[in-house]
Amino acid sequence: MALPDIQLSLRPGIVEFGWGHPDAALLPTADLARAATYALETAGAEALAYGAEQGPGRLIEAIRQRLAQTEGDVPPEDHFLISGGISQALEMLCVQLTRPGDVVLVGEPSYHLAQKIFRDHGLQLVGVPSDAQGLHVEAIDALLTMLRRRGERVALVYHVPTFNNPSGATLTPDRRYALAALARREGLLMIEDDAYAELWYDAPPPPPVYNFAPGGPIIRLGSFAKSLAPGLRLGWVQADPQIVQRCVAGGLLDSGGGVNHFTAHVAAAFFELDLYAAHVQRLRAAYGERRNVLLAALARYLPPTCQWQPALGGFFIWIRLPEQLDTAKLLPAAEAAGVAYLPGARFFPAGGGHNYLRLSFSLLPPDELELGARRLGDLVRREYS
Amino acid sequence: MALPDIQLSLRPGIVEFGWGHPDAALLPTADLARAATYALETAGAEALAYGAEQGPGRLIEAIRQRLAQTEGDVPPEDHFLISGGISQALEMLCVQLTRPGDVVLVGEPSYHLAQKIFRDHGLQLVGVPSDAQGLHVEAIDALLTMLRRRGERVALVYHVPTFNNPSGATLTPDRRYALAALARREGLLMIEDDAYAELWYDAPPPPPVYNFAPGGPIIRLGSFAKSLAPGLRLGWVQADPQIVQRCVAGGLLDSGGGVNHFTAHVAAAFFELDLYAAHVQRLRAAYGERRNVLLAALARYLPPTCQWQPALGGFFIWIRLPEQLDTAKLLPAAEAAGVAYLPGARFFPAGGGHNYLRLSFSLLPPDELELGARRLGDLVRREYS
Repeated sequence: MALPDIQLSLRPGIVEFGWGHPDAALLPTADLARAATYALETAGAEALAYGAEQGPGRLIEAIRQRLAQTEGDVPPEDHFLISGGISQALEMLCVQLTRPGDVVLVGEPSYHLAQKIFRDHGLQLVGVPSDAQGLHVEAIDALLTMLRRRGERVALVYHVPTFNNPSGATLTPDRRYALAALARREGLLMIEDDAYAELWYDAPPPPPVYNFAPGGPIIRLGSFAKSLAPGLRLGWVQADPQIVQRCVAGGLLDSGGGVNHFTAHVAAAFFELDLYAAHVQRLRAAYGERRNVLLAALARYLPPTCQWQPALGGFFIWIRLPEQLDTAKLLPAAEAAGVAYLPGARFFPAGGGHNYLRLSFSLLPPDELELGARRLGDLVRREYS
Repeated sequence: MALPDIQLSLRPGIVEFGWGHPDAALLPTADLARAATYALETAGAEALAYGAEQGPGRLIEAIRQRLAQTEGDVPPEDHFLISGGISQALEMLCVQLTRPGDVVLVGEPSYHLAQKIFRDHGLQLVGVPSDAQGLHVEAIDALLTMLRRRGERVALVYHVPTFNNPSGATLTPDRRYALAALARREGLLMIEDDAYAELWYDAPPPPPVYNFAPGGPIIRLGSFAKSLAPGLRLGWVQADPQIVQRCVAGGLLDSGGGVNHFTAHVAAAFFELDLYAAHVQRLRAAYGERRNVLLAALARYLPPTCQWQPALGGFFIWIRLPEQLDTAKLLPAAEAAGVAYLPGARFFPAGGGHNYLRLSFSLLPPDELELGARRLGDLVRREYS
């Protein structure tokens, strides 16, 4: 039996709301082919040699220019490191900055596979409550005091403050300010996973938490997985130069050079060919339309016992069903009824969220979104009336 | 100041024997551009989506066909996992298979940057003596007994048995047999770093240690860094399916998919376009010629107090100077005389090797090799006569 080439596998007859993947039809395949050719024409063998540990200056420059256009504020180039996507950045930061047994604070809910990476490194996960405006910052303060009193070493806070996975929530500016102030005051490392920053559908999100504490202990992780293509395995770290240098001096980068040198050159070429801004615009239009279709369909088909917030960007709608329902137990019935989702409990580090579910609208055309919402509504009515 | 794009930086006037890098002029730049285009033409968006955790079946198939041609014996496809080069494979294996404080046995001498990766994971390095025929297998047996008696957990043995970095030595077939038998008998994980397997200049090396213990605890790491291009950051793991599945189920691959999906498709396309075998032949001819030139120049210029073995493949000649010389202390004088190398002490986990040095012939044209050997000979005569 031949091995598969990709992660995604879709089951016929099921509306697959479970996968938080970009739509293959929206990947810039032809333009990336152009960029690959251009990268090798312009850099020649330099695109294929052992790359600089920090990543090619060419891509760091392109990222800085993009941030200058979209956010205004850009730190100097020694604050950047090219990564093999956010997952690889998390793995590397765990190796360099944590010890087994350390505590990592994560939002409840928060990205389940980041939690899995932390667990691989022997870290203890402690949940921080959140609401529709994002993480409760005061709760972190209280947890820190409690954990430190117990003799725990709190290594870091991990958070997706913008278009959160799974909740879709965006941390408000005043909470960003408070979070940055707290991180700075307590010398608490914070990882700001900013995978969805480019994908806003109504208005740009607030500035990254990183920008509220320049020179502080905040590590912002950027990614091209959603804005270009996940298969490139490419992203970047924005952090204090000491943290960048810590990674640069580690065995992985010293031995192999930059983690994804060739694809970094391809992405740089994509910028240099002036393809990036227009491509992101297309994504915003396409995914924004899907978000609108799903929200309208949910309003039409879901019973009033269900609650959700409109996500202002990203890929996800997070739905609260009646307390009495358990979305993990309900999943087989949902799949039998032709609709799949991710059960909420996966996103809670220590239990909870049994009556939540995550829908991803990124992968599905409008008619499927509509159909899926209808099936989900029918299911909830059948199970709870 | 613009950041560099690549690791390598050459100093004018110095013959740089220190860098174990492929020569940029020998990288298949134009053919990889063709392969990138072909990969996207044939796989389309599948080359850019989240990749299968094990790596694309397309590349695993190409690797298995190559091994069938060159080695005959090929394990089933569930024994393979595509990595982001050997360094990334080592990092991932440390995360999945070791705990801080575990012991790793490494040859004396052995690849210094693999040692650095192990240290990043809090592992203790213990050296295993070796000679011109490679690692002393009985020494491992004795060390195991001693360490286990002391209550240490020995996580694994790391070794480059073929065209060793730095020594150039190749483990003899009978020692391979003994090493495989020991690993199997003791249930001792062994990482066989096979980065240089394709680069033989006289005759193919003995079969990999892996092949002496089918289904056993040996993890073989292959790489395209030397046979294609280091900037692709691509290699593979060949191991028992349980170990492959352990990595597949880890957070890194679950979250991000295969570590280097797009470049894996490019490498697969390189095979499918039938470019690989001829390219490796060209490399063997070019690097073999350099090896010959360097060995001849060393014989001509180095005093009889220096000793070395002819490497039968790979990039390195390992030279023993008179006991009284310290190659780390000598380096500034060498550089002032226009020749650089890596001091031997770097390759010993716990001291030793002060009078050894590693020369890499991969990067330099024949006249530079000649000049460098002459300068080194002059230096040794001047320092020790």
